[in-house]
Amino acid sequence: MSRNKSLVPHNIEELKAYVPGKTIAEVKELYQPERISKLASNENRLGRSNNVDAAINEALKIVHDYPDPAARALRSDIASRYGISEDRIMCGAGSESLLAGLCRTFFLNKENLITADATFIGIFVQAKIRGIKVKRIPLTNDFKFDIKGMVNALGEQTKMIYIANPNNPTGTYITKKEYQWLLEQVPEDVLIVMDEAYYEYAHTVDDYPDVLENQPKNVIVLRTFSKGYGLAGFRVGYAIADPEIITYLMKTRLAFEPGTLGQAAARAAFGDEEFLTTSTKLVEDGKQDLYRLFDEHGIRYARSAANFVMIEMPDDGTAEHVTQEMLKKGVILRRIQAFGLPKCIRITVGLREEMDHFKKAFNEVYLSKDTLKN
Amino acid sequence: MSRNKSLVPHNIEELKAYVPGKTIAEVKELYQPERISKLASNENRLGRSNNVDAAINEALKIVHDYPDPAARALRSDIASRYGISEDRIMCGAGSESLLAGLCRTFFLNKENLITADATFIGIFVQAKIRGIKVKRIPLTNDFKFDIKGMVNALGEQTKMIYIANPNNPTGTYITKKEYQWLLEQVPEDVLIVMDEAYYEYAHTVDDYPDVLENQPKNVIVLRTFSKGYGLAGFRVGYAIADPEIITYLMKTRLAFEPGTLGQAAARAAFGDEEFLTTSTKLVEDGKQDLYRLFDEHGIRYARSAANFVMIEMPDDGTAEHVTQEMLKKGVILRRIQAFGLPKCIRITVGLREEMDHFKKAFNEVYLSKDTLKN
Repeated sequence: MSRNKSLVPHNIEELKAYVPGKTIAEVKELYQPERISKLASNENRLGRSNNVDAAINEALKIVHDYPDPAARALRSDIASRYGISEDRIMCGAGSESLLAGLCRTFFLNKENLITADATFIGIFVQAKIRGIKVKRIPLTNDFKFDIKGMVNALGEQTKMIYIANPNNPTGTYITKKEYQWLLEQVPEDVLIVMDEAYYEYAHTVDDYPDVLENQPKNVIVLRTFSKGYGLAGFRVGYAIADPEIITYLMKTRLAFEPGTLGQAAARAAFGDEEFLTTSTKLVEDGKQDLYRLFDEHGIRYARSAANFVMIEMPDDGTAEHVTQEMLKKGVILRRIQAFGLPKCIRITVGLREEMDHFKKAFNEVYLSKDTLKN
Repeated sequence: MSRNKSLVPHNIEELKAYVPGKTIAEVKELYQPERISKLASNENRLGRSNNVDAAINEALKIVHDYPDPAARALRSDIASRYGISEDRIMCGAGSESLLAGLCRTFFLNKENLITADATFIGIFVQAKIRGIKVKRIPLTNDFKFDIKGMVNALGEQTKMIYIANPNNPTGTYITKKEYQWLLEQVPEDVLIVMDEAYYEYAHTVDDYPDVLENQPKNVIVLRTFSKGYGLAGFRVGYAIADPEIITYLMKTRLAFEPGTLGQAAARAAFGDEEFLTTSTKLVEDGKQDLYRLFDEHGIRYARSAANFVMIEMPDDGTAEHVTQEMLKKGVILRRIQAFGLPKCIRITVGLREEMDHFKKAFNEVYLSKDTLKN
């Protein structure tokens, strides 16, 4: 009765396996650097609010029970903060889980998705898993989402536009004006996903759009506790959208995400404005410092509204060489060829001592080596 | 340009929204019972290993970083315990997440799944989300998986057989002999999923199958830390299968599940055999006590290899009435019409005082009310 059929469909066969980056322990063992600065994954290098620990100790008392599937308390906090109703909010296990939910919920067969060619990898993976065709529009020359190009790509079969704002890995953002123009151009039955994973760093920028103001029915906003709030290990993010959209997302989500401690930690972190202010100030200072360094040496970079800065090396080989040599010196960076920018390297803006470590190593590996720069 | 197309595909439109059960807080507010016994979700009423707290305090130091995407340390522990290689193991955010992964990874269009009509709801939801046709084979008269019926339902388009062993909500299990017979009947290109969420309670039963012994390439075993180990709030489960199967599941999983604290808690709990022994002994005693009560009053029940017992009421109305009246007395039970057994009620076996609470309330609500029993 054996029929030798395929184990998996074609789209799954084609998926590339996820290759995890080197852990701190592995880097230590391989290269024995004096110190390690993990500047590869845009986590909050300051850690997280001290309020989290007390909340965890309290939540441990009920962790043998299933989490609240509706995350009622956390949603209530988020609703109050933004002055919206709770039925406009859904919590999930980080932005990736929310993207997976969007892909499995809304796409009819043959409907497609439009985004940039160089943006958060998660959306490409989730679309591929669901067999969704993605139209990848090249970034502009200054590393920005090409809004006009995306609008031109709209077709009868377009279900969704995905914009990371600010964009990962470039740090660039679409402005208030560009966002307004986009809303006018896109038909109401095309969903616009605004992935604001770095919102906490970006919202103070003057012309950054306020997407919750008169939020249209087709706009879905994603935010997370993984970045500004420093809770990456807990897996908590949320979507804000029209109640009808949320109702469908609620139907297809896993019943029990985020976990009990994640919900508690997010509530505690959300209430600590002071930690957030300290974090964003640190990042702002760190970015200005990097810009000065890169300007001084004529290194091309994108001004960033997030907690990282992307630089462009002269060629792919140099990007690879620099990333590897920095690793040997204990500075873990992210070369972003997988994001579609093979000449570029992404640097998380961390603590002062981490940035000093970066600058010292970068000087030794690259700035002082004239041969590499031509 | 508005085209009034459907917001979602037909299979998503048809999904029922998840209706969360009443929380302890809600039951308190509604009925003000003297005490609450939550016997509805098969959690470990003893809590969890004391070792977990220390592990959490340690893990909190790195929770601002992303979790280890490969869950290397936890997989290594599991591999050692069972004497298998790590490439046979994948960790996920609880069994539901693993079921979602199975549904999104292996099914070609039109391929179907065979299971019982009354089993864990999660598999029906996940299959529906992926648009998979499910052949639901009725349970036998004594509430067991009808293995012969399932084998008879095999067809050219069958990709997977799903068996919860022991079954939720019945507590029944398929024996060593039945399992061996099944393996002989099912072609190699049909995947057999053995969902052993209640393994920790079942594996000491004499004729319970050892599915890791000479595990065939097409058998996928699922286990979880949510039940016996008392970590439901953390969301940690794992799959054991052939490395090729695991490779595909790794490609379609979310990159960062389970979370950092979940991985740490699972490792700590996995090492505490004593807690597990105490838990399983408590449950075994509690089950024997319930059997005696039900035998005495001629109430039909299924002997259970899990930490719950299912009883059958004379009719649907009585099942609903009893569940509601018990709730008013603070005993939260699960009526399991959604599992396909509208006359039945599932009772989690909890602490001695919780079982006393159950018995007292059940006597008042049902046993002493002759009118209801006819």
